[in-house]
Amino acid sequence: MNLFKQDLVAVAQSPLQQWLTTLPAQLERWQKEQQHGELPKWLRSVEQLPKLEAHRVSLADTVTVQNDNISEGVQNRIRGLMMQLVPWRKGPFNLHGVHIDTEWRSDFKWQRVLPHLHNQGTDAATNTDNLGAKPLRGQHVLDIGCGSGYHLWRMLEAGAEQVWGVDPGQLFMAQFMAVRSFMPPELQERAHLFPLGVEDLPELKAFDTVFSMGVLYHRRSPIDFLTQLRAQLKPGGQLVLETLVVEGDEHTVLVPGETYAKMRNVWFIPSSKALLHWLARCGYKNARVVDESLTTLEEQRATEWMQGQSLVDFLDPADHSRTIEGYPAPRRAVIIAKT
Amino acid sequence: MNLFKQDLVAVAQSPLQQWLTTLPAQLERWQKEQQHGELPKWLRSVEQLPKLEAHRVSLADTVTVQNDNISEGVQNRIRGLMMQLVPWRKGPFNLHGVHIDTEWRSDFKWQRVLPHLHNQGTDAATNTDNLGAKPLRGQHVLDIGCGSGYHLWRMLEAGAEQVWGVDPGQLFMAQFMAVRSFMPPELQERAHLFPLGVEDLPELKAFDTVFSMGVLYHRRSPIDFLTQLRAQLKPGGQLVLETLVVEGDEHTVLVPGETYAKMRNVWFIPSSKALLHWLARCGYKNARVVDESLTTLEEQRATEWMQGQSLVDFLDPADHSRTIEGYPAPRRAVIIAKT
Amino acid sequence: MNLFKQDLVAVAQSPLQQWLTTLPAQLERWQKEQQHGELPKWLRSVEQLPKLEAHRVSLADTVTVQNDNISEGVQNRIRGLMMQLVPWRKGPFNLHGVHIDTEWRSDFKWQRVLPHLHNQGTDAATNTDNLGAKPLRGQHVLDIGCGSGYHLWRMLEAGAEQVWGVDPGQLFMAQFMAVRSFMPPELQERAHLFPLGVEDLPELKAFDTVFSMGVLYHRRSPIDFLTQLRAQLKPGGQLVLETLVVEGDEHTVLVPGETYAKMRNVWFIPSSKALLHWLARCGYKNARVVDESLTTLEEQRATEWMQGQSLVDFLDPADHSRTIEGYPAPRRAVIIAKT
Amino acid sequence: MNLFKQDLVAVAQSPLQQWLTTLPAQLERWQKEQQHGELPKWLRSVEQLPKLEAHRVSLADTVTVQNDNISEGVQNRIRGLMMQLVPWRKGPFNLHGVHIDTEWRSDFKWQRVLPHLHNQGTDAATNTDNLGAKPLRGQHVLDIGCGSGYHLWRMLEAGAEQVWGVDPGQLFMAQFMAVRSFMPPELQERAHLFPLGVEDLPELKAFDTVFSMGVLYHRRSPIDFLTQLRAQLKPGGQLVLETLVVEGDEHTVLVPGETYAKMRNVWFIPSSKALLHWLARCGYKNARVVDESLTTLEEQRATEWMQGQSLVDFLDPADHSRTIEGYPAPRRAVIIAKT
Repeated sequence: MNLFKQDLVAVAQSPLQQWLTTLPAQLERWQKEQQHGELPKWLRSVEQLPKLEAHRVSLADTVTVQNDNISEGVQNRIRGLMMQLVPWRKGPFNLHGVHIDTEWRSDFKWQRVLPHLHNQGTDAATNTDNLGAKPLRGQHVLDIGCGSGYHLWRMLEAGAEQVWGVDPGQLFMAQFMAVRSFMPPELQERAHLFPLGVEDLPELKAFDTVFSMGVLYHRRSPIDFLTQLRAQLKPGGQLVLETLVVEGDEHTVLVPGETYAKMRNVWFIPSSKALLHWLARCGYKNARVVDESLTTLEEQRATEWMQGQSLVDFLDPADHSRTIEGYPAPRRAVIIAKT
Repeated sequence: MNLFKQDLVAVAQSPLQQWLTTLPAQLERWQKEQQHGELPKWLRSVEQLPKLEAHRVSLADTVTVQNDNISEGVQNRIRGLMMQLVPWRKGPFNLHGVHIDTEWRSDFKWQRVLPHLHNQGTDAATNTDNLGAKPLRGQHVLDIGCGSGYHLWRMLEAGAEQVWGVDPGQLFMAQFMAVRSFMPPELQERAHLFPLGVEDLPELKAFDTVFSMGVLYHRRSPIDFLTQLRAQLKPGGQLVLETLVVEGDEHTVLVPGETYAKMRNVWFIPSSKALLHWLARCGYKNARVVDESLTTLEEQRATEWMQGQSLVDFLDPADHSRTIEGYPAPRRAVIIAKT
Repeated sequence: MNLFKQDLVAVAQSPLQQWLTTLPAQLERWQKEQQHGELPKWLRSVEQLPKLEAHRVSLADTVTVQNDNISEGVQNRIRGLMMQLVPWRKGPFNLHGVHIDTEWRSDFKWQRVLPHLHNQGTDAATNTDNLGAKPLRGQHVLDIGCGSGYHLWRMLEAGAEQVWGVDPGQLFMAQFMAVRSFMPPELQERAHLFPLGVEDLPELKAFDTVFSMGVLYHRRSPIDFLTQLRAQLKPGGQLVLETLVVEGDEHTVLVPGETYAKMRNVWFIPSSKALLHWLARCGYKNARVVDESLTTLEEQRATEWMQGQSLVDFLDPADHSRTIEGYPAPRRAVIIAKT
Repeated sequence: MNLFKQDLVAVAQSPLQQWLTTLPAQLERWQKEQQHGELPKWLRSVEQLPKLEAHRVSLADTVTVQNDNISEGVQNRIRGLMMQLVPWRKGPFNLHGVHIDTEWRSDFKWQRVLPHLHNQGTDAATNTDNLGAKPLRGQHVLDIGCGSGYHLWRMLEAGAEQVWGVDPGQLFMAQFMAVRSFMPPELQERAHLFPLGVEDLPELKAFDTVFSMGVLYHRRSPIDFLTQLRAQLKPGGQLVLETLVVEGDEHTVLVPGETYAKMRNVWFIPSSKALLHWLARCGYKNARVVDESLTTLEEQRATEWMQGQSLVDFLDPADHSRTIEGYPAPRRAVIIAKT
């Protein structure tokens, strides 16, 4: 359980203590099962990262940590070790001058989400009304499908007390631990990632805000997924849901064939209206679409840190309004709802 | 385990022996849990039914058992005990002259289904091509959501070797056992009902034909449901799926509000086209709609044996093409697919 | 579950049907776990055994099956395949003229046990009173730690309806299946061996007689073991317990050091008096010692079919009344008790 | 999980973090199961205890907490509430002047044990050699069967860092929480009691010292018990075992009849020599008897706080060297061993 020792102390001390009924056993089982995969190799890269004091930290658009006396040699060492952890999807990061230009400009997504977050504490002001306020101030925030954890740092910037990411991907785990290792101790203690899926969580009913960005369309059962998310929220908590949608009325749902934009395992892509209705059926209140937009080639593209195919390869070369399979090109909605 | 003693012997002797890894423990747990419900009372009614020799049996439209020397007193006794088991939904039955006029004329549904069943044995002839053939000859057939078990007897009529119904409803269990108790021993040994849901079944991959009539729209996850059905079929087996549909293209799916035709827990009502596509995504082959029709007031209505509300009460009084909630009136499709 | 298909049908048809709540899942797990051990090789030897009609069968001292027209070549084939299954400990067997001279003359033990068995049916006569009677007539009999199953055949000779052996040893499983394959179908159907330990059995409370010969001293908890045996017996059933004992009063119990007679995992060797008291504490009635004797070098010795060390090697060469470790030489008691 | 919130934080922060894989789920299950027993009533008494500052605390023979300004009325209130928790067996305590004169003078037992405790840290000095040293300094100590937790406070006096008691008894839980509620915060944080048996513990291999006083003779399987204790100790850890013994050689073990000294569920009372041998078989090293003595009528007797029968009632009135059943009167040995 070594990997998660401090994280479990944080759980024990938090309003999420109930999580201890399942989490430690799951983590132990997970660690045993990973022993023969690639994770040990990746974790060795993480361990070899230099330990440097963070003279300046910025959790704004490019999540940045800077030591003022860094040498080029150390930078090269960091670059080389972080390159062991490719592909990097969610970012960007700048770690002691090493700029990790990830496939996604996840800061774009955050800029669409941030203005609409609701501060539970005041239960009135939104960020747009009150620009100086931190909309997640004092909150325990869960990010389902957090990937490398980029948004976790943004949530801390937005005032969260503790941020909890879950994502079953091994590589994301290693990327998160690499980034966290550069952070100052007082931030390290507030950011956590557990290698789990939402179906592994007990009904905690304890988070102030739950984020799920880019997961719903991968679920065979979107209704069960929305219900599981709701079971994580305390009464009055807020859900921030971002997913693929199609245009259409409340009865329109695209279930693509074997692939959608070359992704396997895409099941339900509803219209925003259909999705609002599903949320109501699942017991959410005040669900509203706060953003809906087409994903651009600036937001998702191949880089030095993700050299595989990206959005441009997933679209019909002759008509960027269509995927390579002929479906509508990726359109994403951000929906906020309350329990 | 007394209730199911002979059924478990039948499982052990069948190609479904693998089922023993879960079924007996589930049945034992179930029996313990039912001890304080209404089941014991209903089972006492079943036990008090007279044991009469069956001089004539017909498994045709009205499932009928007749002893030639029945007295009016015995008939009254049967009627009184069977009335303890109201409401009767699937039928009709005639048991020693007691006609159980159920809410549903389930024989209508069977007439729509039967001509399209495919005989796995010959793997060529359908019933329409070969009127003398028994389309389920020699088969092990599973009926998910079998209710009182009416169709189980029709499946035996269609040649099935053994028929296995599952339905979690306690009352259906009692109704089935009541009807079975009138049957001659050689038929009793071939018809079984277990109080389970499809999610309780292991992946048996052993049935020749699986029926699911009137269940899919109650499932929160239709994709998981179709996958579970497929996991029951042996390679080359056939699925007979009957469910509510709406008109529309392959992207049309109705998710109603709290109720649909006054039913709670209705989740997904796809168009037939959407449903065919879902079946393909779940790995079924050759899925085709063999019937699609509106449910009539002759097929579903209140009777002496089901005195509650029925279809006429669920429709808009001013416009029978609409439900009371304003959705399209119940339209049902029968789809047959292969694994 | 192929290996045990017929055995599970027998369980389903027996008074032991309750066993189905655990047994099939255990057998399935076991079969999966054995796939990479030696069992597959041993089972191939069993499959290659010739299928011959059994013209004469004797379940007396040497368990014997004989086809009258056996050729020397076939005998050699049988001998070679049975030799693949060495070491053979419990016997002897004669299979189509191939005499399997096992380490133990298990017939000696049976001769000490048999006269004292009590017929549950008549609940009065013992075999000594009524030499013509079959003392296990009509019974379901369990043999815990049955080894190759030699005594199972003797129990059938003594009138048992069905005999059920359990022993976790893989090799014993293969030996049993080899011997059973020579038996006529009507005997095959009545003898079963499951690769389980007593701790794997649910509380069946259904056997007429339970045998445990040569197991107790290997148990870390003899009290739990006696309790588990009792949980297999129906009310009024009989236990036949054979185990190592030492001389002494009811407070005398030998717990040897690392080995006893070169056996590891020997824990408690009580005096007969202590053992009778333990049985009373565990709720048994009328426990009595029916035999107590030193194991002789005629009863346990190396043979062609067990070429390793045997009793003579376990005793002090200078003093056969002592084991090589200096403990009292093996003394065995047979105790019969009732529930 | 409210009851144990701070205890779980302590587990998370300790070398026992592995315990979280089972403990929180067990505690949650336990709390649910206790809802309809007497525990809620007892806990209400605990909650009603006055909260007073502890001006003086002594963890010596009578565990004492004193506020200097206590009024008679408050004392009477404490006395009344503590009387709700009778019978009190292990003590004595003096809480703000309320002297709880328990059945056992557990301080006598501690005086026999304390001089022999071995300080793991220095791994050389014992308390007898070095009277100023605290023999449990810095240790994590487990007390199996801790009852009211009296000895836990003594272990803190002896220098333990954290003391962990387990005992499945509900009343002991309430008594412990009552006593702890009087302690100053810095002591409350270091003493814990979980309502578990030793069989509920995973193999933590993490405690410096494990105490088991007065439990072994209640176990059906002493060998499994000793093995379970060993699985709690870190390499080089020490076991302190106190249990009933009889006089005799290493093959002498008393298994009494239904009762011993009117106690039910007494199974194995070995001689000290036999017990030393068992410890060696279970892998302990350097096991030695540090005390063996008859329990006196001064040490165990009825009091105002335990008004039922006590030792004098369990002995033969005519011969105090015998129990009422005629067995040797209670003789207890203290054994210390290493892993």
